[in-house]
Amino acid sequence: MIKISLIGSGNVAQHLINAFTKNEHIELVQAFSRKKTSLENILSTDKIITDLSDLKEADLYIIAVTDDAISEVSEKLPFENRLVVHTSGTSSIEILNSKNRRGVFYPLQTFSKDKKVDFSIIPICLEAASQNDYLILQTVAQNISNAVFPIVSEQRKALHVSAVFVNNFTNHLYQIGQEICIENQVPFEILKPLIQETAEKIKFINPNEAQTGPAKRNDTNTIDAHLDYLTDENQKKIYKILTQSIQNGKKL
Amino acid sequence: MIKISLIGSGNVAQHLINAFTKNEHIELVQAFSRKKTSLENILSTDKIITDLSDLKEADLYIIAVTDDAISEVSEKLPFENRLVVHTSGTSSIEILNSKNRRGVFYPLQTFSKDKKVDFSIIPICLEAASQNDYLILQTVAQNISNAVFPIVSEQRKALHVSAVFVNNFTNHLYQIGQEICIENQVPFEILKPLIQETAEKIKFINPNEAQTGPAKRNDTNTIDAHLDYLTDENQKKIYKILTQSIQNGKKL
Repeated sequence: MIKISLIGSGNVAQHLINAFTKNEHIELVQAFSRKKTSLENILSTDKIITDLSDLKEADLYIIAVTDDAISEVSEKLPFENRLVVHTSGTSSIEILNSKNRRGVFYPLQTFSKDKKVDFSIIPICLEAASQNDYLILQTVAQNISNAVFPIVSEQRKALHVSAVFVNNFTNHLYQIGQEICIENQVPFEILKPLIQETAEKIKFINPNEAQTGPAKRNDTNTIDAHLDYLTDENQKKIYKILTQSIQNGKKL
Repeated sequence: MIKISLIGSGNVAQHLINAFTKNEHIELVQAFSRKKTSLENILSTDKIITDLSDLKEADLYIIAVTDDAISEVSEKLPFENRLVVHTSGTSSIEILNSKNRRGVFYPLQTFSKDKKVDFSIIPICLEAASQNDYLILQTVAQNISNAVFPIVSEQRKALHVSAVFVNNFTNHLYQIGQEICIENQVPFEILKPLIQETAEKIKFINPNEAQTGPAKRNDTNTIDAHLDYLTDENQKKIYKILTQSIQNGKKL
């Protein structure tokens, strides 16, 4: 039984709490939240603490707070030489206060409060300062996920930037697609199977091979017609720059 | 039994031929291809013609060729006053020669030769000059798909532009994500569940509500760190413009 305490009450914290409390090899000792109410619907009240000095002994402390707060929280921990990790894709392992043994436990996924996720398929990227600590993190991660990867801080940065492209920016393109539909009284529903298929393809085909469309075909007539059709300057600009980028595209 | 002949041998033509030959309410009379060999593996040779003048009587002729060729092919058809449609998202119904009754049969999906598609979930957008012809197209479309929509030429343009954003451009963002991973020796595999989840979310949540990430949070530190990290000028430019676009984002 691995004893874990969680610090934080946001999306990542809540999804981890859910995953840990369901797991028979993990004991969730406590969870810290500034407001007790934020966690009351997923955890029994006696396990929720609102003061870091109430933290009991555990094998692992997971700090799942915003990037700006990691350093301060890790400094305030009322103990030394225990294993403390953060869950951030952007912060280095060094941001954690060095009085404790440091590590990173980064689940690479987009978490929304309203939507359940299947943790078993979520990749968890792990980093630790010592091999012993890495093995503890690995045991914990493998208990809740089938996709566990050793990823050092420099690689994690690449992953996070890459995730911004394939997740945040992609979602924004969906939004632009929806805007164009709404402006022209077309149901956005019609595009949803295409969105699914575009993502689905990537499971089996390289994005470079999967690329289709007027930019890939160098179909200048269609590109000009589209630019003519778009009235929003921002949409036009994005259309142009991504079309150019496809046309100059690297061959992987 | 509705009699259909197909003109063309590309991706769309081949997927339509497969869908029609499997359907018991549709008789695929003939398919035209410049080379007989292009269709031999999906259709019996006696149904493949290489000369438009060999076209027999049918209820519907579907021209599934590149946009540039639609007009010429429709002009060369050796008959008048029959129902002739194209399958293009960009071309107007008027591009078809007016000697025949005109329409559009536009399956909104990305077709690759290597990957099977489930036609029943593919939206088919229909347009016809008369109500009678619309009803013929509707019957055909409903035989192979559960998502049939009446879409006039102007709306179809909006859909096609929108499809470029959510499909072609999105796929290009996947490619950039993969480039960043490869450059930093990180397996792109790690990002695939995130790509799936990003697309999956859109089934239930508005893209505007689903938006997360540093741009949405106005997290300038992370944005600056990412721009610092990116060395490729093209990637930097796309990162900046999409970040700005999210920050100025319309509220739908």
